[in-house]
Amino acid sequence: MEPTQSYPDAAHSDPVRMGWMQGSPPPPDKTILYEDGSFLRFPQTRWSYSHMRQFGPTVEVQRGAGPLAVFPRNEQTDLDALTVTLRDGRRVTWQDALELGYTDGVVVLHRGAIVYERYFGAGGEHRAHIAFSVTKSLVGTLAALLADERLLDTAAPVTHYVPELARSAWGDASVRQVMDMTVGVDCSEDYTDPGAGVYDMLRAAGAIPAPPGFAGPHTLCDYLRHVPKLGAHGEAFAYRTVNTEVLGWILRRVSGVSLAQLLSERIWQKLGAEHDAYLSVDRAGTELGGSGLSATLRDLARFGEMIRQKGTFNGRQILPHTVVDDIERGADAGHFARAKIYSHNLPRASYRNMWWVTHNAHGAFTARGVHGQAIWIDPKAEMVVARFGSHHLAANIYLDPTLLPMYEAMAEHLLG
Amino acid sequence: MEPTQSYPDAAHSDPVRMGWMQGSPPPPDKTILYEDGSFLRFPQTRWSYSHMRQFGPTVEVQRGAGPLAVFPRNEQTDLDALTVTLRDGRRVTWQDALELGYTDGVVVLHRGAIVYERYFGAGGEHRAHIAFSVTKSLVGTLAALLADERLLDTAAPVTHYVPELARSAWGDASVRQVMDMTVGVDCSEDYTDPGAGVYDMLRAAGAIPAPPGFAGPHTLCDYLRHVPKLGAHGEAFAYRTVNTEVLGWILRRVSGVSLAQLLSERIWQKLGAEHDAYLSVDRAGTELGGSGLSATLRDLARFGEMIRQKGTFNGRQILPHTVVDDIERGADAGHFARAKIYSHNLPRASYRNMWWVTHNAHGAFTARGVHGQAIWIDPKAEMVVARFGSHHLAANIYLDPTLLPMYEAMAEHLLG
Repeated sequence: MEPTQSYPDAAHSDPVRMGWMQGSPPPPDKTILYEDGSFLRFPQTRWSYSHMRQFGPTVEVQRGAGPLAVFPRNEQTDLDALTVTLRDGRRVTWQDALELGYTDGVVVLHRGAIVYERYFGAGGEHRAHIAFSVTKSLVGTLAALLADERLLDTAAPVTHYVPELARSAWGDASVRQVMDMTVGVDCSEDYTDPGAGVYDMLRAAGAIPAPPGFAGPHTLCDYLRHVPKLGAHGEAFAYRTVNTEVLGWILRRVSGVSLAQLLSERIWQKLGAEHDAYLSVDRAGTELGGSGLSATLRDLARFGEMIRQKGTFNGRQILPHTVVDDIERGADAGHFARAKIYSHNLPRASYRNMWWVTHNAHGAFTARGVHGQAIWIDPKAEMVVARFGSHHLAANIYLDPTLLPMYEAMAEHLLG
Repeated sequence: MEPTQSYPDAAHSDPVRMGWMQGSPPPPDKTILYEDGSFLRFPQTRWSYSHMRQFGPTVEVQRGAGPLAVFPRNEQTDLDALTVTLRDGRRVTWQDALELGYTDGVVVLHRGAIVYERYFGAGGEHRAHIAFSVTKSLVGTLAALLADERLLDTAAPVTHYVPELARSAWGDASVRQVMDMTVGVDCSEDYTDPGAGVYDMLRAAGAIPAPPGFAGPHTLCDYLRHVPKLGAHGEAFAYRTVNTEVLGWILRRVSGVSLAQLLSERIWQKLGAEHDAYLSVDRAGTELGGSGLSATLRDLARFGEMIRQKGTFNGRQILPHTVVDDIERGADAGHFARAKIYSHNLPRASYRNMWWVTHNAHGAFTARGVHGQAIWIDPKAEMVVARFGSHHLAANIYLDPTLLPMYEAMAEHLLG
């Protein structure tokens, strides 16, 4: 059930209108802090998600010295009036749906050209926004790339690369099980439960503040070493961010460089990105590969368009098409169905290389992050949507009834 | 007196050789942390000064979308063998002097072309390094610019812009006194004294860790409000970082934007910078205008060359030449002499708009930061030196006997 607490709508929670962090210095009641956790509290999040580097340590993902890959523009002004039929049957306009979703920014590409681009609230074309779990799909893509190059053996046990995980849930898991999240691991991802394991992980990583005298693990890696197994591996999709953090650890071992450097060298520098991106890090400099990327929306769209074009973008083959084929083919839909909670919104879907593959009639697949972050790729409609949001609800299962019909309606419209 | 504790030399403290932050994760004895203050402890600083964003919150200073201003190159290979006569009479090579100064990077421009460029340790051409008090000269330049545009009245009392400072040392000081640091303020800048006021300021700003249960001010602005007066204003140069923080506060009030945005809009975007720079911020998002800039060395050299060319660079007039003239003219050398401690190394010097003006035969003036950060501008030799270092000693008065002769020797050489 969707939580019933009431929240101000997008207009009433607009961060500029609310005056967050305005003034020099901002008055106390307009100040957003890391220490008291207010940087993760709605409606402050409508500002903080566009300013994550102000709330903690980060590393840059450099764009390099290459020229910018400029998108052609073919903007269509009538798209705001597009009719979207929400899952509850309500018919609203595209513009209304953007508001319902607390949208901070949205870019729609059709055949590689920008047909629609809007920013709201604290968003802006040069403003990096946290991508949350969209980050996972970039990390999963890097893993698939290294596997394609035979640098990473997906059939190998995790402990082949990270022996430190021998006594954890991953002690008898394979790299492939991590990449497709079919590991049985005792780390709840229920964001409505303050005792959920995911919060222990984030506390260890410093991504949320720890109480005074906190005696738990103080780094991401220290936390991962001690996560216990729960159930069996390889039987069901179980969406757990800890898997991406383990995959990040594996990638650092395989590549010998940081995740930030790997992402920069293998992808960001080749995309002709407009801006450096950045990754939040824990106190020991380990990147949060499961949630920590902040980037501008057009750069995320560049990544999405490169994936839609089977690895080709900016006049070069950035990934071999086999890497994208492997994502699009997806994984075992039975594994996915056994996770239960996602099937209502995404029937027939599967999860492969940290991407959500819908297996719908258009072959759409997507990178998704809490509070409404997304890259939605629709091969049939030749469409990519990149979207940032700061919805008050964390879980996408509550946002899907609004967001998925938007992507579908836009795709149908563009197909003509 | 120079402290007598012995330290490993540049080669033995090389951060790559020492393995700081190498490994995934780095082993505990190679990990550098914010919390325990090790990120500010030599020899860890040889790594951390090139990675400040990993140790705390920051904001970006965007370079904008304009094209890069590429430096012409006219590299001279014989410069390493240049003889430098140190102040103690020792004759060493330029290369040896770089090592004595724990250099992380150095760029020498002659007539606008790069004649020498080297990086050491954790330094690199794409690696932002903390500029420490070089930051002050950028902030002072922005203040001089706004004064030139009549947006800032330097004769006005500080409280005209920041009434919150009425009961502090700045309650009866003028903006000009702040810009030239002739304010009588009780805030010791003695880095060898753990009880010095500058550490209270940095603790309030979160730039150094506070002990558990710390009850002092928690933001830069809260700290500044309560700094008491000591002595009279307008009589002597007294180098106090708090003045630059006050000036930053004034500039935010005058411009209505953050220091980062002001620096980006007025300077960084116009320079054709290669990279975004960034500023460390306190927990409320207030930038450390006295010490917090991290930038790449070539970008700092672009700024220096723009100043040398009286505000012209990248094909445009970035500052009116009157702003640079006002810096170069300097201030009252008597005020400077009364500060006593700088006169030995910099006889006849003065301090204007947060720049050190030597009034030497070449009319050299300089931006300087602890541990050996510098922009040295020699108009007669048409030379700019930009330099990053991580010397174990903080105060430049100990480094000057090595560094000043280097700049002078290079200038004489280039004059031919």
